[in-house]
Formats: sequence, structure tokens, C-alpha cells
Amino acid sequence: MIYFTFDPRPDLKEDLLQSLPQETFVFDTTISEGKLAEAEIVVTYGEDLNDSHMSKMPNVKWIFVTSAGIEKMPLQHLQKTDILVSNVRGIHKVPMAESVMAHILGQYRSLPTIYIEEQQHQWNRKMKSRELRDSTAVILGPGAIGGEIGRLLQAFGVKTIGCNRSGKQADYMDQMTTFDDLIHVLPAADLVISVLPSTDETKYLLTSEHFKMMKNDAMFLNFGRGSLVETSVLVEALQNNEIGFAVCDVFEEEPLPKDSPLWDLKNMTVSPHVSSHSTRYLERSFDIFKRNIGYYRAGELDKVENKVDLQAGY
Amino acid sequence: MIYFTFDPRPDLKEDLLQSLPQETFVFDTTISEGKLAEAEIVVTYGEDLNDSHMSKMPNVKWIFVTSAGIEKMPLQHLQKTDILVSNVRGIHKVPMAESVMAHILGQYRSLPTIYIEEQQHQWNRKMKSRELRDSTAVILGPGAIGGEIGRLLQAFGVKTIGCNRSGKQADYMDQMTTFDDLIHVLPAADLVISVLPSTDETKYLLTSEHFKMMKNDAMFLNFGRGSLVETSVLVEALQNNEIGFAVCDVFEEEPLPKDSPLWDLKNMTVSPHVSSHSTRYLERSFDIFKRNIGYYRAGELDKVENKVDLQAGY
Repeated sequence: MIYFTFDPRPDLKEDLLQSLPQETFVFDTTISEGKLAEAEIVVTYGEDLNDSHMSKMPNVKWIFVTSAGIEKMPLQHLQKTDILVSNVRGIHKVPMAESVMAHILGQYRSLPTIYIEEQQHQWNRKMKSRELRDSTAVILGPGAIGGEIGRLLQAFGVKTIGCNRSGKQADYMDQMTTFDDLIHVLPAADLVISVLPSTDETKYLLTSEHFKMMKNDAMFLNFGRGSLVETSVLVEALQNNEIGFAVCDVFEEEPLPKDSPLWDLKNMTVSPHVSSHSTRYLERSFDIFKRNIGYYRAGELDKVENKVDLQAGY
Repeated sequence: MIYFTFDPRPDLKEDLLQSLPQETFVFDTTISEGKLAEAEIVVTYGEDLNDSHMSKMPNVKWIFVTSAGIEKMPLQHLQKTDILVSNVRGIHKVPMAESVMAHILGQYRSLPTIYIEEQQHQWNRKMKSRELRDSTAVILGPGAIGGEIGRLLQAFGVKTIGCNRSGKQADYMDQMTTFDDLIHVLPAADLVISVLPSTDETKYLLTSEHFKMMKNDAMFLNFGRGSLVETSVLVEALQNNEIGFAVCDVFEEEPLPKDSPLWDLKNMTVSPHVSSHSTRYLERSFDIFKRNIGYYRAGELDKVENKVDLQAGY
């Protein structure tokens, strides 16, 4: 039996039942120990399983987590079992890249001004819209998400410079540089985009020196983690107009404190960590589930995608 | 002598002088008959030449118009001369396509909501952002501009259906339909985008029947001409939520009248005919000029791009 510890939208349930007619599904609104005891496969958002459940699910062989993070899972207990754990990492790639493109194009094509003029019923054609074509972007973290951003930027005729620790070539990057050499490519960049995770190496990677090297009309986008740059450094760069504009979806402290100076900066967009949101999130997750249950039933566990390394915790 | 009837930005003038060192340039702030009398080539926005100038420019052989429209030119007089007239049509393709993508992605990725929440210092993550990937777009007018929109949409994983009079295959369209058959593809469309010019055939091409056939969450974008749809038809479709959202850059009457109901519709963006604006407009125009003066000097007039058909008026 496949036990969903949540109750998906009717159309998505219908699709599962039709796609996998040989399977037995139980959909729940909250996790129940009685049903867990019967389950062979558990589908969960990854926030409801706890240590005490571990001894009460003797038949479970696969836990499918419809989330990219697994930090709330009882990982230490799971390590002692043979249970396969897989998740949906990579699912954020498309919506995040689309959000980054939306913010870039929105600024370049004067959307904020258009929206304000409309509110005031003003037919004002005096707005300076830029072209994205032929500009240059530095992408900090050219992995799966950064690569998708690079692919889309290249379609718009943008030159992409990837930046990672090693400088090793990455997909959809016209050129590469390292964290150490980043400062040398910044004067050429119209866009500086980060999707870097939070690690010891990326913490406060960007300093005031970096911002001083950027063009005065450069746009900085942080869609990775807030620890990339100290808030005071970013505030200073924006207040002194060292760069033209910033869009941040992530912050050192989230929610962004009510009294943060970032809220009122005219050359900054505060996005409340929503860039990966998608109304198709569950649909995309279930597509992965449907693809992988085939491997699971065929005993081809090595082919199951996004297996979680319980030791490493990701 | 090459006579500019306007005075471009210093960096653009500098670039012209450096690129064409063998040429003599005169830059003016307004058209002067004295200089016109000496000019061999005239570079103009196309709004300052009148009938009386025609007899006062005996040496002019080429008029380069840094605009796509030539309706303010003394066409009837020019027809009687051997003067070559060329313009910069096609220059709007890139900024217009970028504007269309900005508005689509802006709506899909919740930019208007993000901007409003920021004004109110609200960290509100409850917004429904959609993914553009895997949606379907109908493009009315799949020519140069429509094709560029199609190319970008395809890069985002969108299926493109081109719609023109004949249904003849066009670039970057996965499928084609005709004006007559348009209504049959509309139920499948998430996006309906028009860049059609104003002709007898396109006037009021879209009727209330078309809007009723569209999805309730479809987005309609008019970046061609306002005569495509009667304002009252559009207002009714939006007020009755027959479609989800509209973005118009063009209107039946421009400027949009102060009392138009369109201003206050919550599911509509009014854009004041600015989608082709670009801070790089003159730079792009001069690139065309620099490319073509080579042909002109070599006597290869047949190679000069965007020659205006003075008889036809475009």
C-alpha cells in the first residue's frame, strides 16, 4: 500500500489512480500510526515523520519526500534501516530560473514604473527601458539552477560567466572564473546573479570591494542564501549607488525584520523567499514519483532518482 | 558631408567619428537649410523634412531615417527624385519581444504582488506563482517580432501556435493556424499574444466569441495595434473573468482616455505604448547606418537594408 500522509488536489489524485491502476493508495490529511503500520511506500512532505514512528512502520521500504530539504526527517534512525529515501531535488530549477528572468526583465523593461503610472492613470511614456540583449551576466553557482538561468540568458543573447570554487567548466557558461578571481570579471558585468548555497566558503563571499568593482548600473540578484553578503555591505552599496539595483529573495534573517533598511531602498526589490514557488509543484513531484515507482517495482533501486544520502544528510 | 538633423549622445558621436574616419559629419540640434544644401547624406528621425526642403537639397543622395515609421516624410516629392530612402525597421524586434516576456513572466512569477507587499513591509509568502514551462501560446502575427517572441517562448519550453491569414508556416512556431480557424485553438492557449499591424483584415479581428473560448486563466497580450479588439469587448471579457489577465501596450485611442474603464481593472496592465523603447535605440540605429554606408560608398545600393518603397509608403 502507498500511504500519502497528506491529501493532494482531486485532479492530482485522479491522475495517480489512473496512471498506476495496479497500486493501492491511501490518502490521509495527517499522519496516522495505524496506516503507517500497513504502508510499504510512504509519500510525505518530510516534516511529519519523527523518531517514534520508526518502530511502527515495519513494512516500509521506500519513503518518497516531496520536498528538496530533508532536515526535519529522523535521519539518524533511518540510517539504521534498509529503507530507501528519495526526494524531489531539482524540482525548483524551472520556477527559480523563471523568477530570476522575471525580475531581470521586469527591471530592464520598466515594469515597476508601468505599474505605478497605471495606478495613477498616468499615460507617461518617458521611461528608460533597457535591452537585455548583448549584456553580460556573472552567475555565482553555475550548477543545475545556475545552468538553467545561464541557458535562458543565452537565449536572450546574454554572455554568461560562471563562477565557482574551481573555475571548472559548467553548462551554459561562455566563460568561467573562480571565487578568488571573481573581482576581476565584475567590471564587465551588467548582472551579478547568485544561487549559491550556504557553506563556510560562500559565507560573506561578497564584500564591499566586490560591489565597488561593479558597474554603477549593474543589477545584483541573490536567490541563493542570505549569508552570501552581510546586510550592511549590501545596504551601503545601494545607498551609495555603487550598483544600480538589487533583487533579493533571501536574507541573513528571514522573515526580513520589520525595521530592516532594505524595505525602503528605492533601488531594491525585497522578494519574500518565493522564487521557487509553483502551482505545479505537486504535479512535478508526482511526475517524479510515477517515473520512479517503475524502477522500484522492477527491483532496479539503483535507478531511483534523487536518492538521499542519509549519512551526508542530503 | 553627412548631415545629422539631430545631436546624438557624445559617446555615440565619438563612435561614429572613430568608425568612419574618412567621412565628414555635421551634427545639428534642428534642421537648417544652409547645411541641408551642402549635405550628401541626411540622417533624420523622419519628422523634420517637409515639402519646401525638397528643392533646397540638390546634393542629397541618401536619406537614412532612424525610425520605423515614415508617414511624416514628404513621400510624394521624394518619389520624383532619385534619392535613396532607408530606415531602421526591424530595430523594435528585440526590445518588444523582451517587453512581452517581461510582462508574461512578471505575472506568472507574482511580481505585482511582490512589489505591493514590499511597499507595505509585508513578508507574505502566500502567493500563487505559476510556471511558464509547458504552457501553450498563440501568436497572432508570427513575423519578425512574433517570431522573436516565439523563439524566446520556445526556450522557456512553451508550445507556440502561429496565426496568420494563410496559415503558412512561420519561424519558431510549432504549429500554425489561420485567422478563420483561430477560435478552434484558443481553448488550448494559456497565452494569446498579438503583434498584428492595423489593416482592414485585423480590425476587430478578436470578438467576444474569441474571448469566451479562451481559458478562464488565459493571459491576453496586445502589443500590435489597438484596433485588434473593440475596447468594450475587452472590458467585458475582463469584467466577467472570461480570461485571467490582459496586458495592453496599444489601445483604440491613445493616449488612453483618463476616464477609460481599463485603468482600474484589477486583471489588466495598461502599458503606455512603450514596449519598443530602448536606451540602445540610437546605438542600434547607428550600427545599421555604419553597416550600410559601406554599401553606399561602394555603389552597391541594392545591398542597402530597409530601403523604403516610396510608392507603397513603407
